[in-house]
Amino acid sequence: MSFFRKKIYACAGFNTVSLGSGRKEFHPKKPRPGIEHYIKEAGLGTIEQIENPANIDEGVIGNFVAERFCKQGNLGGFFPIVHPTFQYKPCIRVEGACDSGGLALVVSIKTILADLADVILAIGVEIQNSVKAIYGADYLAAAGWYSGERKKGHAYFFPDQFSQRAGACFEKFGYDKIRAGMSQWYVNAIENARKNPKAQEFHNKNPELYATGMTSPNPKVFCEYINVFDCSKVSDGGSALLFASEEGLKKIGVDKKDAVEVVAYAQVQDNLTTPPPDLTKLSTCEIAAKRAYERAGIKPEDLSVLDVHDCFTIAGVLAIEAAGVAGYGEGADFIKDGKTKTDGVIPTNATGGLIGYGHPTGATGVRQAVDVVHQLLNKAEECQVNIHPDRPFGMMSSMGGNDKTVAAMVFRKTE
Amino acid sequence: MSFFRKKIYACAGFNTVSLGSGRKEFHPKKPRPGIEHYIKEAGLGTIEQIENPANIDEGVIGNFVAERFCKQGNLGGFFPIVHPTFQYKPCIRVEGACDSGGLALVVSIKTILADLADVILAIGVEIQNSVKAIYGADYLAAAGWYSGERKKGHAYFFPDQFSQRAGACFEKFGYDKIRAGMSQWYVNAIENARKNPKAQEFHNKNPELYATGMTSPNPKVFCEYINVFDCSKVSDGGSALLFASEEGLKKIGVDKKDAVEVVAYAQVQDNLTTPPPDLTKLSTCEIAAKRAYERAGIKPEDLSVLDVHDCFTIAGVLAIEAAGVAGYGEGADFIKDGKTKTDGVIPTNATGGLIGYGHPTGATGVRQAVDVVHQLLNKAEECQVNIHPDRPFGMMSSMGGNDKTVAAMVFRKTE
Repeated sequence: MSFFRKKIYACAGFNTVSLGSGRKEFHPKKPRPGIEHYIKEAGLGTIEQIENPANIDEGVIGNFVAERFCKQGNLGGFFPIVHPTFQYKPCIRVEGACDSGGLALVVSIKTILADLADVILAIGVEIQNSVKAIYGADYLAAAGWYSGERKKGHAYFFPDQFSQRAGACFEKFGYDKIRAGMSQWYVNAIENARKNPKAQEFHNKNPELYATGMTSPNPKVFCEYINVFDCSKVSDGGSALLFASEEGLKKIGVDKKDAVEVVAYAQVQDNLTTPPPDLTKLSTCEIAAKRAYERAGIKPEDLSVLDVHDCFTIAGVLAIEAAGVAGYGEGADFIKDGKTKTDGVIPTNATGGLIGYGHPTGATGVRQAVDVVHQLLNKAEECQVNIHPDRPFGMMSSMGGNDKTVAAMVFRKTE
Repeated sequence: MSFFRKKIYACAGFNTVSLGSGRKEFHPKKPRPGIEHYIKEAGLGTIEQIENPANIDEGVIGNFVAERFCKQGNLGGFFPIVHPTFQYKPCIRVEGACDSGGLALVVSIKTILADLADVILAIGVEIQNSVKAIYGADYLAAAGWYSGERKKGHAYFFPDQFSQRAGACFEKFGYDKIRAGMSQWYVNAIENARKNPKAQEFHNKNPELYATGMTSPNPKVFCEYINVFDCSKVSDGGSALLFASEEGLKKIGVDKKDAVEVVAYAQVQDNLTTPPPDLTKLSTCEIAAKRAYERAGIKPEDLSVLDVHDCFTIAGVLAIEAAGVAGYGEGADFIKDGKTKTDGVIPTNATGGLIGYGHPTGATGVRQAVDVVHQLLNKAEECQVNIHPDRPFGMMSSMGGNDKTVAAMVFRKTE
């Protein structure tokens, strides 16, 4: 029995370049495209792949905090700039911190299941280079509880939250093992990004990635247990993905073989006012993955491709445990042994992930889904991994805050 | 034929006090409840009216700009504070400027229609008294296009936008007529609010309301064509409303006679980067109302109660024209003739509206729906209007920005 009351497909998708430090075309002092540009570029890049964009019924825009970085809200109002036929159609902006993009996927699917639309354009977008990193860190801290934990928090609030997670893992499972897994995660991220022309680390030529990953933390200027290479960068970018019913695919002229089926999702919300139950686990991500697998009727072993939310290398380590591909405390070794590499047991973040592609926060959940869909459609170009005929599934898991707001979605290659 | 694929009901709802200047308990220098409080108070006030809140499946939170007023995002993370059984359930935060609450209603309905849930708690919330009004006006200006119109805009951006609308109406239809309609709108708003203990203007004892409404604008300190009484106030508040399927009503122990049916809605998005096509019209609101009526299979004359988005008195005048209860250019006379009063042709904003109840922006759309539902259930206490047996419908229309983002929803009394 299907989890959804009717078939839902994802077809065309598009990611912009993730712009920020590391990209050759980025210069902190030069003017850069605004949020409108990324919404339009991602939207157009997607609808150019289909016939008749007039048949797109609605839009959803995922964005975390344009109110701060761009002094801009009412973001649905940028949907009509993508295509003239979108004028006076509905568009909803959703926010769930760094899971905002994941929530855009969820609302898109709900709208089609509701029989209110046949084709939905989900867009994720974020601008973060508009202010210095230290101010940006404060804006992004809006994902944590302002009246609570943030009052006594670190200037780099989220890096510090995940630094504490790394410290807890060092203590519980041993520094060498966890640190090696984190550094190998960094190596894989950059190596994968070098094959993805849209990735922020595409131009990274560092020949000593592992040594760089092992850089000692400097608590005087940053965090206690992690270094700056353990962190996803400050990024501007947008992503878009089209969802359609069976009828919708016909309306936009997409053959079912050029679409993947969305088989299930799970969205899980933890309480923002309580501390994580266990610093060595992404408990909410784990619940979301378990629910998603159960609803899809599959096991982690059925995945050919996985995309997890590695806002920090330690988050990557914990995310593959939460996704059930590695056991508790075993993620670091799993990574060190090459099992998450593109030719490994479960290719994970094959396009670079948040560390390699970049992390335009509100775009990330959509970007992850676009990349999983491209993999299942064999359209991932240099980043393509092997989709096993008997493992036709891919999953993405997107996380907002410190394991607070999570959306996981399972896709299946069509016959 | 129904617009929705299955029956959707709204049942229990709750509005907090709209706190701000005018309320006796408000003092600008004294500590006030935060956003967490209003989410919890509105949510609890609602779920206390039903059996078994554990059967609530999901939450939706409408909020405009807590990122500025409260330095807080990731708002879905406050859903679990309402009730322990909400932990790890989904919650989505939606934003559409002052229509954020309206969008929360829309996503709630989509989720039930999608067969993903039977009972949804929609919450709207906003805090605005955390900063001085002039800063607040800048935060709220996020509803307009920052890179465009706002660059050359007025310090009181939105008041000025609607002041220009008033000026255009004065020029086209005559100052005396329009001004009289605006002032009468103010009178009705305060008179209705005096019967609503939750209203910000509940304590207003001014015996000369019409004269106050006629106060001359002072462009030196405010706007050219409107005075401060033409504006909804700065408000903190929250509202919540439960939506359920037929099965959902049973699960929460609500009899169908204690619920109203949601018969249709229309959500319409105009382009944020273009000026309004006609300053003397709320064109997007008009499209939304027309679509909502058509989908509900009714005419404006079938309504017994109407709640429109009077962020300014001129918006009230134009909103009743957009809702089709008064003809183009005839709204002001319609109001002056008492036709929108609680004993008039179409009782409008019977609980005070945004001018009288207050305008905690992200809460407003939910507040409007709560009040329409209470009217149809005969639970509006001192504010109750006559629900004609042959006009069993009520409509709310919520607007974000300068007629940019609109949701209109039609409810029907059950047998």
